[in-house]
This record gives sequence, C-alpha cells and structure tokens, in this order.
Amino acid sequence: MTKLEEYKKINKELSHLAHAVNLMYWDMQTTAPDGAKERLSESITYFSTEIFKKSTSDEIYKLVCDLSDPIEFDKLDDVMKFDITKAKKDLDEKRRIPADFYEEYVKTTTNSSMIWPKAKQTNDYALYEEPLKKTIEAVKKYQKYKRPDMEVYDSLIDQFEEGMDTATIDRVFGELKEELVPLLEDILSKPQPDHSKFTMFIPAHKQAELCKMLVEYMGMDMNCFAQAETEHPFTTTIAPRDVRITNHYHENDIIQPIFSAIHEGGHAIFEQNVDHKYDDTAGGQINLMGLHESQSRFYENILGRNINFWKPIWPKVLEIIPEFKDITLEEFVREINHVQNSFIRTEADELTYCLHVILRYDIERAIFIDGADVKELPKMWNELMEKYLHITPKTDAEGILQDMHWSDASFGYFPSYLLGSIYDGMFLEAIEKDLGSIDDILAAGDIKKITKWLNENIHQYGSTRTSKEVLDAVCHKELSAQPLIRYFKEKYKKIYG
Amino acid sequence: MTKLEEYKKINKELSHLAHAVNLMYWDMQTTAPDGAKERLSESITYFSTEIFKKSTSDEIYKLVCDLSDPIEFDKLDDVMKFDITKAKKDLDEKRRIPADFYEEYVKTTTNSSMIWPKAKQTNDYALYEEPLKKTIEAVKKYQKYKRPDMEVYDSLIDQFEEGMDTATIDRVFGELKEELVPLLEDILSKPQPDHSKFTMFIPAHKQAELCKMLVEYMGMDMNCFAQAETEHPFTTTIAPRDVRITNHYHENDIIQPIFSAIHEGGHAIFEQNVDHKYDDTAGGQINLMGLHESQSRFYENILGRNINFWKPIWPKVLEIIPEFKDITLEEFVREINHVQNSFIRTEADELTYCLHVILRYDIERAIFIDGADVKELPKMWNELMEKYLHITPKTDAEGILQDMHWSDASFGYFPSYLLGSIYDGMFLEAIEKDLGSIDDILAAGDIKKITKWLNENIHQYGSTRTSKEVLDAVCHKELSAQPLIRYFKEKYKKIYG
Repeated sequence: MTKLEEYKKINKELSHLAHAVNLMYWDMQTTAPDGAKERLSESITYFSTEIFKKSTSDEIYKLVCDLSDPIEFDKLDDVMKFDITKAKKDLDEKRRIPADFYEEYVKTTTNSSMIWPKAKQTNDYALYEEPLKKTIEAVKKYQKYKRPDMEVYDSLIDQFEEGMDTATIDRVFGELKEELVPLLEDILSKPQPDHSKFTMFIPAHKQAELCKMLVEYMGMDMNCFAQAETEHPFTTTIAPRDVRITNHYHENDIIQPIFSAIHEGGHAIFEQNVDHKYDDTAGGQINLMGLHESQSRFYENILGRNINFWKPIWPKVLEIIPEFKDITLEEFVREINHVQNSFIRTEADELTYCLHVILRYDIERAIFIDGADVKELPKMWNELMEKYLHITPKTDAEGILQDMHWSDASFGYFPSYLLGSIYDGMFLEAIEKDLGSIDDILAAGDIKKITKWLNENIHQYGSTRTSKEVLDAVCHKELSAQPLIRYFKEKYKKIYG
Repeated sequence: MTKLEEYKKINKELSHLAHAVNLMYWDMQTTAPDGAKERLSESITYFSTEIFKKSTSDEIYKLVCDLSDPIEFDKLDDVMKFDITKAKKDLDEKRRIPADFYEEYVKTTTNSSMIWPKAKQTNDYALYEEPLKKTIEAVKKYQKYKRPDMEVYDSLIDQFEEGMDTATIDRVFGELKEELVPLLEDILSKPQPDHSKFTMFIPAHKQAELCKMLVEYMGMDMNCFAQAETEHPFTTTIAPRDVRITNHYHENDIIQPIFSAIHEGGHAIFEQNVDHKYDDTAGGQINLMGLHESQSRFYENILGRNINFWKPIWPKVLEIIPEFKDITLEEFVREINHVQNSFIRTEADELTYCLHVILRYDIERAIFIDGADVKELPKMWNELMEKYLHITPKTDAEGILQDMHWSDASFGYFPSYLLGSIYDGMFLEAIEKDLGSIDDILAAGDIKKITKWLNENIHQYGSTRTSKEVLDAVCHKELSAQPLIRYFKEKYKKIYG
C-alpha cells in the first residue's frame, strides 16, 4: 500500500466508526427505550474514544506529515490536497494542547454542562456562576495553546466560521442594529393579527405528512432522506447519502413544526448536495456554521415566509390539513410573519431574532475582549434586552440561562446564526440577478430552480470554500448587511404598511 | 490486569461492536433510506469483520485456554465458568476448520443465498438445484471438520438446539404425526367459519396501538422495549435492556399483525428476562432455538388463541379498534382458531403448522441420512404434502422453494419450531400443576402470573440450561409429544365438536 492508500484506509475506518456513533445518537433521540440509554451512552463513549485514538495517533500524524511534504503533496488531487492541509492544521493545533490540561478542560466543561440545566430549572444563576467562570478561563487557556498568535475571541469565532473575525462582525452587526431597532419600534406600534385561529388540534401523523410534502417540494432527495420525531428538531448526516431531520409536533400549534421542517430541510439539502467526491474526507464535513445556517434560514425565512412559496401548494396543504379550510392563504402568511417582542431566542420571529443574537455577541465580546465580570452578566443581559427589545426578563431562566451554548463551551457559535441571515440577503440579490424575481419563481412552483442554484453555487463545495470565498465567487462583493436590511424593509412595509 | 479482567475487557468491546451491528441491521430494516443502504452494508461488513477477528484472535484463544486450566477455572464464578466452557468448545471447533475451506464454504452458501430468491420468483427449481447440491456438500464437509465424531445431521440439529438429536426427534415427531393426521381429517370434514367479517380496513397506526397494548398486557417491560414496522416481523436484542420487535401491518387483515405481535412478544419477554448477571457473556446469548420458539409459540397459540386471553381485554380492544363493534368475542376466537390446509408454512394455523415442519424434517433426514438425490426433492416434497395434508402444490414456488432456510445453509433449524410446540405441551402441564387452570388465570386477567412463572422457571437462565435440562427441572420427565396431543384434542373438540 502507498502512504495515500494507507491514509485513506484509516479514514474509511474512521467513517465507519462515525457511522456507528451518529446512528447511536439518532437512536438515542428517536427510538431507544429509556432502559437502553445507559448502555447506549457506554457504546457511544467506546466508539468516540476509538475515533479520538485513531484520528490523533502517531501513525496517522506521520502519514499526514509525509503526505504534506511538497513532493508528495503535489501528486495529490484537489480533494486530498484540501483534506491533508486541513488534517495537518488540526493535528498540529491539537498536539499543542498538553494532555493533562486537556483532561482538566474536559472536566471543567462537563461540570458546567451538568450544572446549567439545574440552574435553569431552579432559576439560580448563582449556582452556575462559578462553573461558567471556570469554563471561560479554561476556554481562554485552550485557545491560547491551540493558536498562540491569535486573539482568543477571533479564534473562537474562526472555529465555527473559518475566516470570520470580530472586526467584520462588529461592522455588519453594527449596520444591522442601527436600522433594526427603529424598524422594530415602528412595526410594534402597528395593529397585530389574531393568533387564535391557529391553535386547532391537528394530529401528529398529519403534521408529519405535511412536513414530508414540504421538504420534498423544496427539492429534498427522498431516496437519501428520513424523518422522525424528537424533543428538539435537528439535522444529522448519519453517513454519506443518509441525511435525516427530526421535528417536534405540537398538536395545538402546527406553525412551529412547519417552520422547523423547512429550516432543517434547508440544512439537509445542503448536506445532501455536497459532491460525493468529498465523501470520507474533510471537504465533506461542513463545519462552516454560518454558511450552514444561511441555507436553513434561506429556506425558512426568505422562501418559506413568502406568500409565493405557498401559492402553488396551498390546495395540497388543505388536502393534508383540512382543518385549515376556514383560513385564507393571506391569513396564514400574515400569521407566519407576525413580529413580536419575546424573551426566548428559539421562539423569536425573523426580525427580533437578529437582536437576540446581537445581544449574545455583545456579551461574548464583553467576556473575551473587555474581561467582564461573570457576576455582572445577568445585569448586562437585562440591560441589553431593554435597549434592543424594550422588554426585561422577569427571571434569569428566561434571560441569560435560556441557552445551553455557553455551558458546553461553545463560545463564538451564536454569531453564526445571524451571519447566516446576513449572507442570505446577499444570496437573495445574487439569485435574483441570475434567475429573476424570487416572487415569480416561487409563484410558478419553480422552487427547485432556486435549490439547483444553491446546489451549484454553494452546496457542492462542502467545506472546501469558506463563507468569504463563497461570497466572493457568488456575489462578487464584500460582506454587508445592507441587502438583508433592504429585504427586511421592503417585506415588512408590505405587511405592516 | 488479571487474565480474567483482560478477557472481560475484550468481551465488553465485542459487545459494543455487536451493539453497532445490531443497531445497523435494525436501521436497515426500519428507517434507513434506500440510498443509504450500500454504505450501511459496508459498515455492517466492517464491524462484523472486526468482531470475527477479535473473537477468534490468538490473543483471546490464549486467554480462554489459560482460564480453562483447572486451577484458574476453579476460581471462576458460575457465570464465567459457563462462558469459558462455551468459548473453549466453540473456538476449538472453529480452529479445526481450515481457512481455505472456510472461504470456499462462505462462497458456496453466499451463492445459493443469491440464487434462491430468483429461483423462487421464477418458479425454477432447476436453477437452484446445483447451488443447493453444492451447499449440502459444503455443509457436510464443514460439520465433519467441526465435529469429526458426530453424525452430520445430529451435529446440525445440535447447533440450533444443544443436546437434541435425531433419535429423540424421530420419536416425538412420530408420536405427533400418528395422531395429527386423523385429527386433521376429522376437523376438515366439519363446517368452517366465515372469514369475510375480518377483512375490514383498519389503519396501521391503530393496529400498532393495539399491538403495543397486547404486549404490555402480556408483561413486557415497556422501559426496555421498542416496536417498529418492517417487511417481515422479527425480534432483536440490540444490547442488554434493549429488546425490540417489528411487525407488518396488513390494513385489510388485522389478525396476522395481532398474532405476529403476540409471537414476537413472547420471544422478547424471554430475551428481556434473562438474568443481567449474564450480560456480555455466553449465557446471555440464547442460541437454543427450540426453547426460544417454545416461548413465542406459548404466547401465540396456547395463550393468545384461548378465549380467556381476550375476555378481560375485549372492551379495551373495542376501544382501540371500534371497527370490531359488530364482531362478538366468540366469532373472533372462532376466526383465530380456523384450521385449514394450505401450502405456505408461515401462514399455517397452529395444527397444520406441525405437519409443515415434519415434512421439512423428513426431507432433511433424507438428505443427510439417506443421501437423497437433490433432483428428487421436489417430488418428495409434493408426495409428503399429499400424505400429510392431502393437497399438492401447483408450483415449486409454493412448494419446496418457499423457505429461505436451506439456501443459507440453516439445515437443522426447522425442527426447532415444532420442538418448541412440543415443549409447550409439557410447560402447560407444569404451569397448571403449579398455578391451576390456565383458563381461570387468563379469565381473571392474571396473565402476568404465567409470565412470572416462565421468567422464574425458564427465562432467567438464558442459555445456561439446555432445553432438556429445563424440561428435567420444570417438568421432571422425558420429552414427549403426548401433552401437546392432549391439548390439541381437547381444544379442537370444543371448537369443532
């Protein structure tokens, strides 16, 4: 065997091990009975440990170093060039982290992950304060080992959205919030629609049928797709050609499941359409979270909340959900674009959602750049809620304790959600330039033309192009929040007058 | 680490690998999209190969030999004594099979497995004849390597039902068929019930709900149980405390799914109730197929086709399946005990089923003991059908080609099904001696008392007691078909007069 063959063989084995872990997670969430979960956790731990050992072994590091040697590297095709470059960078970084510190790091974050749900349940920030403080210290130390020459917060952002940095985010989030706060004030002063028509009982299996129809309509390859019900909706790629989404059916609120399906469907269509030449290599694993989120949010908000998305399929919707017979398409679209101030990010509408993310970014910035005192964070949270949304949480549970991200050390993740929407504004412009008005395409029932455009311009490259490279190639311009702002203003002027 | 600890560590790893394989098979049958199946097969092959390598390695063989040494062996507890004895025997047998022959054996049986479905579909025995012949030769050679001192057919039977042999089966199957053929002739001369009331449409999700209720009623531990829909019903233990069954819902024939659920439920209750001290050891893997089948068939036939099983739950059945409102309990029980001659084993009733198995046993005997010509088997099949059931298949597809067992070399498996029923006759006697009339227990809604008796007398021991040892301990007598015959005569006299 050549070194390349040896390396590929190990990577294929790693794929089989990942297949087992992914399927076990899926089973844990969807099917496994409660009594089985302890053993399931043990098996997940066993396979995850095997993956860790195999992917960081001296054997694989030596192969990666050998294949990184200019003479060997030159012989590789593009797929393997990307893979080896990424592997070398990741392994070099991992190997800079001392083993004893890594153990301490895992203990610290595991502890804060365990304490956070209790703190949230009992609305007790004091309980969480010390574990959070320790996690922040551990994260700082971890990043300093990993990338000694980089600012900690830039490094955190880069790990979820390669090539992104604080300066860029400051700029685009700044543009956005300047326009958004007054726009929102204006909207909220207008009359709001009546929600009561949308609380009728619709059985879960009918909701599942509707959701399946919707993702198929969007262009999902149903031959490589499955769906199931879980506590929280998510998308997972179990193995190449095996992408699955989950949903949670609320029998008295069908709107939530509908938009979860469209959102997760967007993630899944991205995953399905990565070129299969990247299977079992780094290019096939999409770790650009902003770009990923841009795809789910494009379908969810820009397409799914547009009246023209629904026009061609409204008779089909009524066929599956006859309970909608007394609702007009206009009433439905009004309902799904209902803007209102609220405390919980995951329940927020398209517009206020942006401010929920900006608030979190402000706090992460304060922690990692200004060295804010962890004790002061709840106060900071509430002040920012008042500033952006003019409401104040009654408890920390519906304030700073609501999200799990910080408890498991995922600092730097939150900005991805909003970056996704900002990219979407730009993608919308690019698509309309290439294909004409989105309204017309949707009204003609041609949503699959849009999906094809996304496949060709974004999805097929997997993670081999950073978001910046995608924007350069597709939009030929610098990142800017202006297109998103224009989209918001036009859209909500039509709705709220 | 001591040698025992080392051995247990490897066995635990093997359990994790088996967990992955079992879950992947489950996923293949229940959820995985078609596009995912090629990779799923690859992953299953990868993990199965890892299991084969790990479980037959020189490393584990040396540990097993060391722990089999009298001084070491004496120090083991009973669980590990059983495990080591079994492992030593299995490994010694496996190591007697030459590697090059084993490869040839796998090729031969894989080939006949691939050709059989085509032969069945096209009703072409000639296509299958040569592969079948080669499989029989390979099986004979395999068994001669494995157990040079044993008759081939005895060895085949022993591998599915340890301790069983041809002489015993000749005797009990002989007793049974002598009584069964005239009993059947008598029954078939009587008026038969009208089936047409039972073909109404009942949606799959209602059938699933009923089946869940039934297995829960039987005493399933719902905390360690899951069910799903597949092409053919089966039971699988994914890992300790994780037993699952599947069903196939026929929307115009609810009777089949009901009895599949009760049958698989019986298998699952056995699996669930093996003492957990046997987890990750040989005692926990029940490879006594006759005993296993006795448990599924006890619930399916002896309990499930008894009117008293249904009396306490009939109102609940009507609540879930209101489509039954015009059917009386008596009509229902008459329908589920409808005896009729038919060609297909898997669709046969409790009584004719016995003769389907005896026919297959006769043919296996002819092949391995009398050296019958493979070309003559279809003729032999049809003559036996005429002799036992007085009907002749119109095609080989509904005759000798109907079952997959021979195509994948599972000769010796068929007798297990009927041995299970013969054990059931004896278990019925023992239970009634210990607990009183089954009719009364069932009518009082106390089926869980019977389940508890089975748990304590049979299930908890897993495979550490052979069927013969179970019968000795529980019934205190030799294997005999008389109790089953008595049960048949009494039961069907009541039904058919």
